[in-house]
Amino acid sequence: MAMLLHLTDVNEKAWADGLRAALPGYPVLMRSDGYDPKAIHYIFAWKPAPNAFDGMDNLKAVFSLGAGVDSLMQHPALPDVPIVRFVDDELTQCMSDYVVANVMMHQRLFTRYTAHQKAKIWSQLYPPASSEISVGIMGLGTLGLDAANKLKSIGFDVLGWSRSEKEVEGVDTFAGNDQLDAFLARTDILVCLLPLTPETRGILNMETFKKLRRGPLVGGPVLINAARGGHQKESDIVTALRDGTLAAASLDVFEVEPLPKDSPLWEIETCFITPHIAAISNERSGVKYFARMLLDHEAGKPLRNLVDRARGY
Amino acid sequence: MAMLLHLTDVNEKAWADGLRAALPGYPVLMRSDGYDPKAIHYIFAWKPAPNAFDGMDNLKAVFSLGAGVDSLMQHPALPDVPIVRFVDDELTQCMSDYVVANVMMHQRLFTRYTAHQKAKIWSQLYPPASSEISVGIMGLGTLGLDAANKLKSIGFDVLGWSRSEKEVEGVDTFAGNDQLDAFLARTDILVCLLPLTPETRGILNMETFKKLRRGPLVGGPVLINAARGGHQKESDIVTALRDGTLAAASLDVFEVEPLPKDSPLWEIETCFITPHIAAISNERSGVKYFARMLLDHEAGKPLRNLVDRARGY
Repeated sequence: MAMLLHLTDVNEKAWADGLRAALPGYPVLMRSDGYDPKAIHYIFAWKPAPNAFDGMDNLKAVFSLGAGVDSLMQHPALPDVPIVRFVDDELTQCMSDYVVANVMMHQRLFTRYTAHQKAKIWSQLYPPASSEISVGIMGLGTLGLDAANKLKSIGFDVLGWSRSEKEVEGVDTFAGNDQLDAFLARTDILVCLLPLTPETRGILNMETFKKLRRGPLVGGPVLINAARGGHQKESDIVTALRDGTLAAASLDVFEVEPLPKDSPLWEIETCFITPHIAAISNERSGVKYFARMLLDHEAGKPLRNLVDRARGY
Repeated sequence: MAMLLHLTDVNEKAWADGLRAALPGYPVLMRSDGYDPKAIHYIFAWKPAPNAFDGMDNLKAVFSLGAGVDSLMQHPALPDVPIVRFVDDELTQCMSDYVVANVMMHQRLFTRYTAHQKAKIWSQLYPPASSEISVGIMGLGTLGLDAANKLKSIGFDVLGWSRSEKEVEGVDTFAGNDQLDAFLARTDILVCLLPLTPETRGILNMETFKKLRRGPLVGGPVLINAARGGHQKESDIVTALRDGTLAAASLDVFEVEPLPKDSPLWEIETCFITPHIAAISNERSGVKYFARMLLDHEAGKPLRNLVDRARGY
């Protein structure tokens, strides 16, 4: 029995040190340690290589670093065992920080005032109050719900849209393709926190933007995407920002990352770009989470936060 | 008996129309109507002229538009009657919107990422979580308390400082000059919502900035002033932003407004300037508030939200 770490583009050694300290009685291996694939009961994976799971006949579970499992689900030889997603309170808090910060920057017209400052223009335009603005959140998982609650506590009118019907106190919820248009028609600031699946790929496109409410926000609706670059059609975002279909945007993710130097998005002053730093899986809480998951499972308890393969998240 | 409007730099006619509709049985006059000063029982004032109160021997109260009464308190012939401040739920909400938005913009390092975007630099630096950041609010009146509660609900560590001791649930409070240094030593983001009095004039100066915590915020502490320009020494802010004593600032108010074109603040990219638009007294809620105050007082109830002349607010 052993747990194998297979973490690409991440400080694997630091995770190994943390997990070894948290699991004193259980072998924690790195690929460089050499191992018998049949001895691996748990694999802790991030961007696994095509042969990552070869020969692992006794695997009990895949532990996925990161809340999004879209790239893992594309793996050509993903074994038929439970996949545990990382649900991290610190990641959730950081994502809500990002969402609330960016919603409020746009509610308070910061791109307008940044442009005015540059031109030394003193022109008073009072932003609408938070209570006049509807924020529509796509995706009502752990991240979407936490952001919704914090936006409500500030005073925003919060709407939610998800694949299947959900009830959330104080939030008007919409579900499925049938109710997407009704959701968009009431939304001033659209926030994408969806999982990336074949159904949601490219959902942030011109057709969607045109259905957003042209309400109390000066200049028109706003897009915020902190989910995956695959959700957005960047050429549509460029067009929408230029022709006024969107007043502004905050993008943390892109079709290609790092965002190529020749992307027109860099130079659009109404688009606020951050380099995929909205939220990161935290090592300290990750060690605690996966060590507890392994020990509980070894003690006979069920695994939690499992990926539904049919839904893809 | 009558109420006189004496509102400078404001649409006095719109207020008169509103108050007349709300007070059908009570005469509401504008200066242009002509009036006998002895008939004026209430004067609704904003930036009153030096002779504004002359001959008003039967005045029962001064109603002040705006939460801040610093300029009214300087009036050379302010009559010795109760002064009612405007406490406006909508103004409070807008001020909290401004405070939370600007706190979070700096927590999320927006001046850094704006500069990176301009240079097309993709450089991942994860902002600290809100729970790692201390926001110190100077002034724990209606505005300070509402902002404190909203910042707490997001996850920030919130501290408060006020002239006299106050207890606020979930907020570590400090009072008076004796505890100012201890308050500053624990503050990453300093928010000024103080009334402007002789004691608080110029309080936002280099000596104050040097005492702020150099904690988890990248680059150092941040200043946010949404109170009055008289609180700040702008030459000190310029120096502090240039020498790194402050990492960044958001200023909505200035020593001279509009901010003169030759102010160096305009060109400091770590200083976010807005043209005194954090919050405005709302006409609709103001009409409701002062009409209710007058009717209640005429019915024998005490006036509320009175200015304490000894404190100056």
